[in-house]
Amino acid sequence: MVRAGVVGATGYAGEELIGLLLKHPQVKITSISAKIDQPRDIAKIFPKFKNRIDLICAGPDIKEISAKCDVVFLALPHTVSMQMVPKLLKAGKKVIDLSADYRLKNIKVYARFYKAAHKDKKNLKKAVYGLPELYRNVIKNAALIANPGCYPTAAILALAPAVACDLVKLDSIIIDAKSGVSGAGRKASSELMFTEINEDFKAYKVNMHQHAPEIDQILSKLAVEKLKVTFVPHLLPLNRGILETIYLKKNNGSKNRTQDFTALYKKFYKKEPFIRIKEEGQYPCLKDVVNNNFCDIGIKEDKEGLIIIAAIDNLLKGASGQAVQNMNIMYKFPEQLGLI
Amino acid sequence: MVRAGVVGATGYAGEELIGLLLKHPQVKITSISAKIDQPRDIAKIFPKFKNRIDLICAGPDIKEISAKCDVVFLALPHTVSMQMVPKLLKAGKKVIDLSADYRLKNIKVYARFYKAAHKDKKNLKKAVYGLPELYRNVIKNAALIANPGCYPTAAILALAPAVACDLVKLDSIIIDAKSGVSGAGRKASSELMFTEINEDFKAYKVNMHQHAPEIDQILSKLAVEKLKVTFVPHLLPLNRGILETIYLKKNNGSKNRTQDFTALYKKFYKKEPFIRIKEEGQYPCLKDVVNNNFCDIGIKEDKEGLIIIAAIDNLLKGASGQAVQNMNIMYKFPEQLGLI
Amino acid sequence: MVRAGVVGATGYAGEELIGLLLKHPQVKITSISAKIDQPRDIAKIFPKFKNRIDLICAGPDIKEISAKCDVVFLALPHTVSMQMVPKLLKAGKKVIDLSADYRLKNIKVYARFYKAAHKDKKNLKKAVYGLPELYRNVIKNAALIANPGCYPTAAILALAPAVACDLVKLDSIIIDAKSGVSGAGRKASSELMFTEINEDFKAYKVNMHQHAPEIDQILSKLAVEKLKVTFVPHLLPLNRGILETIYLKKNNGSKNRTQDFTALYKKFYKKEPFIRIKEEGQYPCLKDVVNNNFCDIGIKEDKEGLIIIAAIDNLLKGASGQAVQNMNIMYKFPEQLGLI
Amino acid sequence: MVRAGVVGATGYAGEELIGLLLKHPQVKITSISAKIDQPRDIAKIFPKFKNRIDLICAGPDIKEISAKCDVVFLALPHTVSMQMVPKLLKAGKKVIDLSADYRLKNIKVYARFYKAAHKDKKNLKKAVYGLPELYRNVIKNAALIANPGCYPTAAILALAPAVACDLVKLDSIIIDAKSGVSGAGRKASSELMFTEINEDFKAYKVNMHQHAPEIDQILSKLAVEKLKVTFVPHLLPLNRGILETIYLKKNNGSKNRTQDFTALYKKFYKKEPFIRIKEEGQYPCLKDVVNNNFCDIGIKEDKEGLIIIAAIDNLLKGASGQAVQNMNIMYKFPEQLGLI
Repeated sequence: MVRAGVVGATGYAGEELIGLLLKHPQVKITSISAKIDQPRDIAKIFPKFKNRIDLICAGPDIKEISAKCDVVFLALPHTVSMQMVPKLLKAGKKVIDLSADYRLKNIKVYARFYKAAHKDKKNLKKAVYGLPELYRNVIKNAALIANPGCYPTAAILALAPAVACDLVKLDSIIIDAKSGVSGAGRKASSELMFTEINEDFKAYKVNMHQHAPEIDQILSKLAVEKLKVTFVPHLLPLNRGILETIYLKKNNGSKNRTQDFTALYKKFYKKEPFIRIKEEGQYPCLKDVVNNNFCDIGIKEDKEGLIIIAAIDNLLKGASGQAVQNMNIMYKFPEQLGLI
Repeated sequence: MVRAGVVGATGYAGEELIGLLLKHPQVKITSISAKIDQPRDIAKIFPKFKNRIDLICAGPDIKEISAKCDVVFLALPHTVSMQMVPKLLKAGKKVIDLSADYRLKNIKVYARFYKAAHKDKKNLKKAVYGLPELYRNVIKNAALIANPGCYPTAAILALAPAVACDLVKLDSIIIDAKSGVSGAGRKASSELMFTEINEDFKAYKVNMHQHAPEIDQILSKLAVEKLKVTFVPHLLPLNRGILETIYLKKNNGSKNRTQDFTALYKKFYKKEPFIRIKEEGQYPCLKDVVNNNFCDIGIKEDKEGLIIIAAIDNLLKGASGQAVQNMNIMYKFPEQLGLI
Repeated sequence: MVRAGVVGATGYAGEELIGLLLKHPQVKITSISAKIDQPRDIAKIFPKFKNRIDLICAGPDIKEISAKCDVVFLALPHTVSMQMVPKLLKAGKKVIDLSADYRLKNIKVYARFYKAAHKDKKNLKKAVYGLPELYRNVIKNAALIANPGCYPTAAILALAPAVACDLVKLDSIIIDAKSGVSGAGRKASSELMFTEINEDFKAYKVNMHQHAPEIDQILSKLAVEKLKVTFVPHLLPLNRGILETIYLKKNNGSKNRTQDFTALYKKFYKKEPFIRIKEEGQYPCLKDVVNNNFCDIGIKEDKEGLIIIAAIDNLLKGASGQAVQNMNIMYKFPEQLGLI
Repeated sequence: MVRAGVVGATGYAGEELIGLLLKHPQVKITSISAKIDQPRDIAKIFPKFKNRIDLICAGPDIKEISAKCDVVFLALPHTVSMQMVPKLLKAGKKVIDLSADYRLKNIKVYARFYKAAHKDKKNLKKAVYGLPELYRNVIKNAALIANPGCYPTAAILALAPAVACDLVKLDSIIIDAKSGVSGAGRKASSELMFTEINEDFKAYKVNMHQHAPEIDQILSKLAVEKLKVTFVPHLLPLNRGILETIYLKKNNGSKNRTQDFTALYKKFYKKEPFIRIKEEGQYPCLKDVVNNNFCDIGIKEDKEGLIIIAAIDNLLKGASGQAVQNMNIMYKFPEQLGLI
């Protein structure tokens, strides 16, 4: 049994991780911690876990965590993760970091979007971007996983085949993204009150969201050319799920060929356990991916352009599910173990 | 034109008052204030009012309010109202207080449920409980209205005919109440976040809610006998509306007579512009009363007992709509003016 | 008092019309009809109107409607309207048609998107597209108004200034539209059940919705050049409201000029009572426009492109509110009468 | 591996059963059927199951089902189940029936509430009421399980200890029940449309719901005395979950003793894997039981009365989860297998 620790257990990603790990046949949760006033039974914090787990959630103590765990999941705010990662790696632990701290390779971009200087350049270099569909082979042997952001997971999976195969105009990509409210994290803010969100819908951080450079970074690598997407996130009045509607132009090579893209995508992802390409004329919806680890993708192809729609559960494939998928790869477990 | 001021404009009841008064043909809003960091255009605070009102919302200044207004609506937290009321009354203003400060005549009960000593016993005595269906005649000439709580409005209207006509066992009244989230007010609390409330439902303050003694007080007066209801409120995952399902036993006089209560209620309320009694076998639902000032009541009568269901919009008949109804009475306007 | 009839009263637009006309100081509703099994008190169909209106809703009888009404609102499915319009016009009535029957001037396009041949080409030519911000002067004297579709209202208002001033690449317009469920009309379909929609989100009719040619038609006229938008509608899990996020490229003339567009839009719409342009960096949200007749528009300008976001209430500015606005214009009433 | 069949796979309970059985380590789904126009891949009907199951859903064929299955789950409407049960039992299959057909032992009561004559009195006698907390020992060896209704599951679990220990006035029980919309089943009805339910709340079948006699039957047996509860169900605008607030009077024996009931309940249920009794002052909420098989119970005790609140997921502990729990018992599997 792998001994796993969850740091940042009181947030949505942490809560979700506990639920997933409790069901995982090869894992035993041995440590739960969070920024917390005083130690408290995790089943008191989340009564839904009562009778299922018997652990105290206390402030994180690196020594204790290192002694008790083989792998540590960090479900922390950015800037907090990079304070803990060096110590955990030094202690020989495998670390799966769900924060943004090790995703952006360019520390200037990190500083601009996260308003903080990076403090751990050494490990930043070694960190592997934990998107199994693109980086499975390096994930296998990584000590530190930068678990992808929720929006980037859907966007990159939706765009990777077209971009990697050089079929699109790189300056034409527009991502209209919609996310459920759990994506904003568990924090008491007047803007996230029930009565503010319910029956409302709006865009936010219009073309200036911190997930855009993460998408740019990975897609640029695939394209072997720098690109910049237009990215507008919106807030849906529902708990979980991300759906992104992506508009782009084919490049001259692929123009005028139609009905190839669905086939191309099926081929590109044919061995992937968690990617499902919709038949032509069919499109994803949130309810098919919520509470599971799948990413559903549907494609509408016109002469000149493409519309690609992708959907995931922001807390599963977009966070904790993908983190467990990464762990499965690191430990050579079947990739779907505990996730289906 | 009556010159009206709204104090506490940034809360839900205040926002609703502004909307109602803007539509009222006999009222001009002349002052808007609230506890606020710095003065701000009310249309900046509530963009939905842009192009409809051009007033600055600043911290409340009694002198200025007194100079500008004939009637002042206080949409303030309890304990704050009773600091302002004496000054406004002294300045000769009419005051409609939407807080709980002047509802409970017994200051010990007030202290127990609101955790504060009462500071204005003098005016407490003079305050008129602003439920027009029971107290229209005293409201007409009142200077200070204690606008009823949202739960009590529905409960008292649902029970008044049966209790006043001495047809029920006074110790048998059980009120199972359900309210939309705006009833909790506009405050950033982790318990009221969208993701906590959405798709959830629960009871709270089980038989210890501060609105219970308000119901007891008014019904006891009607019964000319002290009574105490069982009262359990629940939180509905929706923005507005209260529905109360009330269980009670008939007393010996009314037992075994059936199909009288619907007729009795229709007669009791026959001149009321805002009370609608459902036909037998029909029951209220929120969507018929939300965004209007009606209270719908339906009755199921068995041999021994009654089930009475009442519904209102907690922000209208349960707060700001009733406040405007009271103002209409005080100024001898048609009671429905601006409310339909 | 204008005597108004509502045909198709049982749908969402019809219900909304009744509510609006009941509040309108210059209108008396004199006839209510709908496809219905047998005549029924409209307050039985919509209990929320009880005590507010006392009319029977029966199957529509043109003679009776003509005798009782000066203006007739048709809130009917497409193809049904065009069977009634000729008779009503012949009887000298003013007609405001909320269906799609008189919106598309090209009957081939109508046939393709609505799967029916047009039956009233004569009146189609005379019909005026009822978007007051563009066609106020012709609306004034029109006998037949084709009230715009909900999606087109938001899209055209959002794009008109930029397109009319020749500042955009006409082949670059992408409209990512999101609508509340009332936009789908009141019909029992398994896809519109609560449990199917709630906590779900999805695109539908991807780039093949019948409102796209309506947008194309009006914008092409403004541009004096044929254009075709990309249009993808999505279904939001909420009752009412449309928000459209629109992506487009500036043309060479306007490229590299920034911060002009917000000013341009403010100027273009400066006399409009129902258009509000957001300050730079501010964007519309549904809750500011739901239950009122405003259209809010916000603009994000980059070097090469624009992102324009527009929001309306689909049942008000997107249907019944706009219909009443048109009636106000036709009768020379103040344009906001009964709408604010 | 147990070979399991699901009949009525297209409803909510059937869908849920498929999801549960797919995760169950000792079960293989071998047959899926439903009333359906033509055979169809179940993953086409429910795209969320794509890549997880590869079976055709066709109309139910008893012979084929009997050949392929050891245990058959019937998620059928009442009256349909009793046409299939005799044949399946004759073929030696174990049957878990989720309909109401085998729950009520009194066929007159069945006829009154379900508007149909019972057609299988023979097996009705043998059917075991599948509430494991009360009937585990008979479930073990049963061939036919009448899986309890959703409301009765919560009500009986909430009341069993108090009633069985003779601590309450049997004529005092009032159950105010609230259910999510999936409880109404998957059928296109105008009353269950999104826009009708969303932001609405109402009671229905006030004290005349068909689940009341089921509660009466089981509690009467426990009390060894006939009793009749007052039962008012309400419809919550959310997908899943039932919460019942139950009011009752203690009998003379238990009156004036306080703080005993929470302890009593903990003792009564101490070996139960799926019952959780809340500490004093704590009450259940839906979100703790949704998507799991627990029943949470909280108790408020006064001198004379009790308020008991119970919550379950109507599709799990209230239907398919309980069905799998029953199957686990019948096959001597650990009772929580596949359910946690």
